[in-house]
Amino acid sequence: MEARARAYGLACGRGRPGPRNAITDVPGVLVGHSTIAEGEVQTGVTAILPHGGNLYRDKPVAAADVLNGFGKSAGLVQVEELGTLETPILLTNTLSVGTCSTALIRRALRENPDIGRTTATVNPVVMECNDGFLSDIQALAVTEEHAFAALDAAGGEVAVGAVGAGRGMSCFGFKGGIGTASRRLTFDGGRFHLGVLVLANFGRAGDLRLPDGRRLVPLDEPTPVEKGSVIIVMATDVPLDHRQLRRVVRRAGVGLARVGSFWGHGSGDIALGFTTANRVNHDEAHDLVPFRMLNESRIDRLFEAMADATQEAVLDALVAAGPLAGRAGNWRPGLRDLLEKDKP
Amino acid sequence: MEARARAYGLACGRGRPGPRNAITDVPGVLVGHSTIAEGEVQTGVTAILPHGGNLYRDKPVAAADVLNGFGKSAGLVQVEELGTLETPILLTNTLSVGTCSTALIRRALRENPDIGRTTATVNPVVMECNDGFLSDIQALAVTEEHAFAALDAAGGEVAVGAVGAGRGMSCFGFKGGIGTASRRLTFDGGRFHLGVLVLANFGRAGDLRLPDGRRLVPLDEPTPVEKGSVIIVMATDVPLDHRQLRRVVRRAGVGLARVGSFWGHGSGDIALGFTTANRVNHDEAHDLVPFRMLNESRIDRLFEAMADATQEAVLDALVAAGPLAGRAGNWRPGLRDLLEKDKP
Amino acid sequence: MEARARAYGLACGRGRPGPRNAITDVPGVLVGHSTIAEGEVQTGVTAILPHGGNLYRDKPVAAADVLNGFGKSAGLVQVEELGTLETPILLTNTLSVGTCSTALIRRALRENPDIGRTTATVNPVVMECNDGFLSDIQALAVTEEHAFAALDAAGGEVAVGAVGAGRGMSCFGFKGGIGTASRRLTFDGGRFHLGVLVLANFGRAGDLRLPDGRRLVPLDEPTPVEKGSVIIVMATDVPLDHRQLRRVVRRAGVGLARVGSFWGHGSGDIALGFTTANRVNHDEAHDLVPFRMLNESRIDRLFEAMADATQEAVLDALVAAGPLAGRAGNWRPGLRDLLEKDKP
Amino acid sequence: MEARARAYGLACGRGRPGPRNAITDVPGVLVGHSTIAEGEVQTGVTAILPHGGNLYRDKPVAAADVLNGFGKSAGLVQVEELGTLETPILLTNTLSVGTCSTALIRRALRENPDIGRTTATVNPVVMECNDGFLSDIQALAVTEEHAFAALDAAGGEVAVGAVGAGRGMSCFGFKGGIGTASRRLTFDGGRFHLGVLVLANFGRAGDLRLPDGRRLVPLDEPTPVEKGSVIIVMATDVPLDHRQLRRVVRRAGVGLARVGSFWGHGSGDIALGFTTANRVNHDEAHDLVPFRMLNESRIDRLFEAMADATQEAVLDALVAAGPLAGRAGNWRPGLRDLLEKDKP
Repeated sequence: MEARARAYGLACGRGRPGPRNAITDVPGVLVGHSTIAEGEVQTGVTAILPHGGNLYRDKPVAAADVLNGFGKSAGLVQVEELGTLETPILLTNTLSVGTCSTALIRRALRENPDIGRTTATVNPVVMECNDGFLSDIQALAVTEEHAFAALDAAGGEVAVGAVGAGRGMSCFGFKGGIGTASRRLTFDGGRFHLGVLVLANFGRAGDLRLPDGRRLVPLDEPTPVEKGSVIIVMATDVPLDHRQLRRVVRRAGVGLARVGSFWGHGSGDIALGFTTANRVNHDEAHDLVPFRMLNESRIDRLFEAMADATQEAVLDALVAAGPLAGRAGNWRPGLRDLLEKDKP
Repeated sequence: MEARARAYGLACGRGRPGPRNAITDVPGVLVGHSTIAEGEVQTGVTAILPHGGNLYRDKPVAAADVLNGFGKSAGLVQVEELGTLETPILLTNTLSVGTCSTALIRRALRENPDIGRTTATVNPVVMECNDGFLSDIQALAVTEEHAFAALDAAGGEVAVGAVGAGRGMSCFGFKGGIGTASRRLTFDGGRFHLGVLVLANFGRAGDLRLPDGRRLVPLDEPTPVEKGSVIIVMATDVPLDHRQLRRVVRRAGVGLARVGSFWGHGSGDIALGFTTANRVNHDEAHDLVPFRMLNESRIDRLFEAMADATQEAVLDALVAAGPLAGRAGNWRPGLRDLLEKDKP
Repeated sequence: MEARARAYGLACGRGRPGPRNAITDVPGVLVGHSTIAEGEVQTGVTAILPHGGNLYRDKPVAAADVLNGFGKSAGLVQVEELGTLETPILLTNTLSVGTCSTALIRRALRENPDIGRTTATVNPVVMECNDGFLSDIQALAVTEEHAFAALDAAGGEVAVGAVGAGRGMSCFGFKGGIGTASRRLTFDGGRFHLGVLVLANFGRAGDLRLPDGRRLVPLDEPTPVEKGSVIIVMATDVPLDHRQLRRVVRRAGVGLARVGSFWGHGSGDIALGFTTANRVNHDEAHDLVPFRMLNESRIDRLFEAMADATQEAVLDALVAAGPLAGRAGNWRPGLRDLLEKDKP
Repeated sequence: MEARARAYGLACGRGRPGPRNAITDVPGVLVGHSTIAEGEVQTGVTAILPHGGNLYRDKPVAAADVLNGFGKSAGLVQVEELGTLETPILLTNTLSVGTCSTALIRRALRENPDIGRTTATVNPVVMECNDGFLSDIQALAVTEEHAFAALDAAGGEVAVGAVGAGRGMSCFGFKGGIGTASRRLTFDGGRFHLGVLVLANFGRAGDLRLPDGRRLVPLDEPTPVEKGSVIIVMATDVPLDHRQLRRVVRRAGVGLARVGSFWGHGSGDIALGFTTANRVNHDEAHDLVPFRMLNESRIDRLFEAMADATQEAVLDALVAAGPLAGRAGNWRPGLRDLLEKDKP
């Protein structure tokens, strides 16, 4: 049985998922991982590419919402002001944001030799969670090469669980990590998708709640404090403007609440979304440019898809991720083992 | 049996409520209602007073968080800038915000003849939901006298259900209205409270979820769209600054998600909170003033209390409120009837 | 000589104004005033209509920026969330916001009998300054009829100075009030305009600075405190999205700083802008709708026009407005008299 | 004659500066630079330390305001959420933010071995401007050692001009860089200071305006576009809360407008401020902690000081900085040379 949430009966909401039930159901979106699993160091990098072309030249419209800002993400100020992404999104551990930022800069320079010369500079977007429980985060083990490896590995198939940036993460006292989910949408008779990828490292042991109302508690959890963080990346091919995107990604908070989080103080809970359907040409020659946006009275379909896909992506990470023994003998059980014991 | 959520087994979270399980468990806080129930017009005004003195002279520190801004509240811009309240908070129907604002102004002028002469003007705070399904909202039936009546009726006992501003509200296809809940907190060995009062007029029929995971659906619901709104007012005697208050009231969104909302497009979901423990003296003579704030590493206790109390206050409104027949033969069933049928 | 800033040599910036040098140079925009000048009461209402049709059905894209939120404006929460206007904008004195809100509601109900019945409610937008120095603001003299009169009077010619909401306002110790200015813009070879209308009631006596660097001080100014407020309304026919509009209207702060303001504590400094080129159809049948936005790399032209037009509109109000004797023998000199004395 | 703005008659406003007219007039604040001046590479790092102790253990209350977010600063999300700083502030060129973030992390780990083990992670704050005109920004020449050198060099004397992060900056077509200024303040009979340090790299050639109204234009300026950026760091020993600090630092925008900026599209204009008078103890044992804040009705004194000190700090950078020949034969004249020619 494939280790996905849905295979364990943890489907969320009424909507239908896309063919992969993954963020890459949005055409063009690519995901890659680079994983470090060497004794005390259990960490990595995950890359999300809105499309396979030159993102600096062809920028997707984007927006972020900070549910709880106890976090160290890079690049959000400019996303808020200009409403676009111009690099891939990298996810990693908290203390490697600087290194991953530099890697994104170096890659953008390679593709765009005019950066910082005849055109503007570049805004790397890197988001993070703290994997210090299972990994020696003080080792600063992630290098620019790990970032490049994640970017180079990007494809349409999304590995989930204890991979990439998710390698050392924890969630509700279980092993956390990378999860994903998607929903199909129909507008004006056309087929669209909304996809979510989460880096799940949040939630107090004992608070996890499944869609059917069950609460699942890991055994022997010594420190029931909500810390860590969760990063939610949303992709869609529905044409939205910046304001609409921000409204949509904010509903990540609903999905988090449904699985049992109250957006704890110590958790950097940040959602970032982009649409592949509205793009800004860096070298646009015209003054006025055509766009499309969603009839706002239809936006509940996206709100619901965002809440459902976020909820399911977190469960997906939990199902796929564990168990793992890491730094200093620290250990996180896998939710899957508990689910299988629980089965009738 | 008293028509409160807890009496029907709908307690939320692990915390203990205060003696009244009401926003007025916070010492000094007062609540009053004025209800209009005359045929097609089913509406009213609810007043929340942070203390019984002159609020313009003695302003509690306050903050708001807009979860979904499809709403017409008055006064939030200044609360965000100055971090204080200087009038009572009035709740009413959407089209009566202007009238209630004028009533608060007139009352403040009566108590403070220097307003607009030798001192500044006054910032009335009024929040609203749309009760047009059950009430003839076009009648603009609320007068300044109704606002004064609600203010004059304010006391420590909080009537809940289809009273005051809650008279004509709907919630998840059931009759909605006013609900309240509180939680006890201990800091530095002292006793404190956090209390919530909601004006519940939100939620799509079929989405209501009880704490034990049950979904309850009203019969014959014709229009399963999430519209309406919900206003959440939080009071506490824990000393917080403006930033901390905003962090706390934001967790209202967790409580709303738990009962089944995804903060729908058409719902103005706005939370406003104040602390009675930090106040600004309008006529302060000193340049520098002492205040207290919470050790931030303890703030999860308030986050959890806010989420739990919001969830329970919504259920409280549902349990107490119905059923009601209103405008144009429109009708909303009461959740209590369904709960009693459901009982073993 | 016409009492306009430009006629007194107070042109600002390098751009060319439109034919009227007024907000109504943006095609379709209308402005009307209703003025009360009866002894102690010197106040009024000013109406700005983005177009002459049914605004609830045909909503211009809009955005606001709060430079200093010591103000009591109504309607900004929804403008921020939904990015549209659905009523005219009314300007009035601080304590009349409630009454003007109700007037806008009543007018919208008249034109749209489905409001609060089969469609949503309506978000009235009213902005204000405190004219209590020259007018008996405690009299609450503005009625709904005054609001209707301002709306009914709306046309393409803009009266400036001590008219409408500007009747009792003060500015840098001089008589303030209504001022306007516009700038021509060219995009893709087409002609566009950006227009500004201000309600100027801010600035500390002695701080006023003219474009040539001169400081002008009113004689006998007893209370050099920056209070009051300033409201800046911007209209354009350049197609912008919500985010771009907010960026543009924020530059009102530059214009205010140039005339000598530091956005004082007691001054509610709020800018609101809309574009007539992107509109949302309330009854839109399609799910996805085309619109246009500006190539962001051209936006400096709008930033500069916004700063220049705001600066000039404030000077325009000062030139046109005074002098006036009002409540309790209070008096404000006119800047024009001083400018004429100063002339070589 | 010392190369400071005031020595050239460019004093701003009516307030008196502190003894050094520098950010370090705020007791405890330290500033250090590390400068790289090697052919094509003209760049560096500037460090601002709120105090000389362990900032992670003893966090000053802080706040930021983003005037124009076309910028790549690190750390602002957490400053907004938690209202504190926990590392020094580093300034550098745009593409070196990642490296400087990592340096701050490494330094914090050295001082606090519990980070990422038994306590939370750390939020490095790094701000930037693009010095690509005069320096080979693509070289990524700044190393962690440069960051450590700037931190180690920190003291009470502030070098200004083309030093540290200011080495390669441009401003209004002149050579820009580091400038500073301060103002004395009296509250409750006690002496306080507000100090500002700017990294000035903004402004369109031809727009520079001196306090007396003169416009100064560099000769032979080929590209009159406002790009670059400006970072404004404010320090004070006046006790303020997070909300008050944000209100104060926002007035940086007034100072920028006075020198001739309209906060251009391509300029990341960001202000960050902290108070040394309110600090958060990372290991606080009490639940409730005493603080002081400013009587809000006195805050105009700080607003004015902020506007004046920002304006003067920019002029200070211009006076001290130039001329400089950098990358690819690019050259910026010094304002001082022009001022000396202009003198009677």
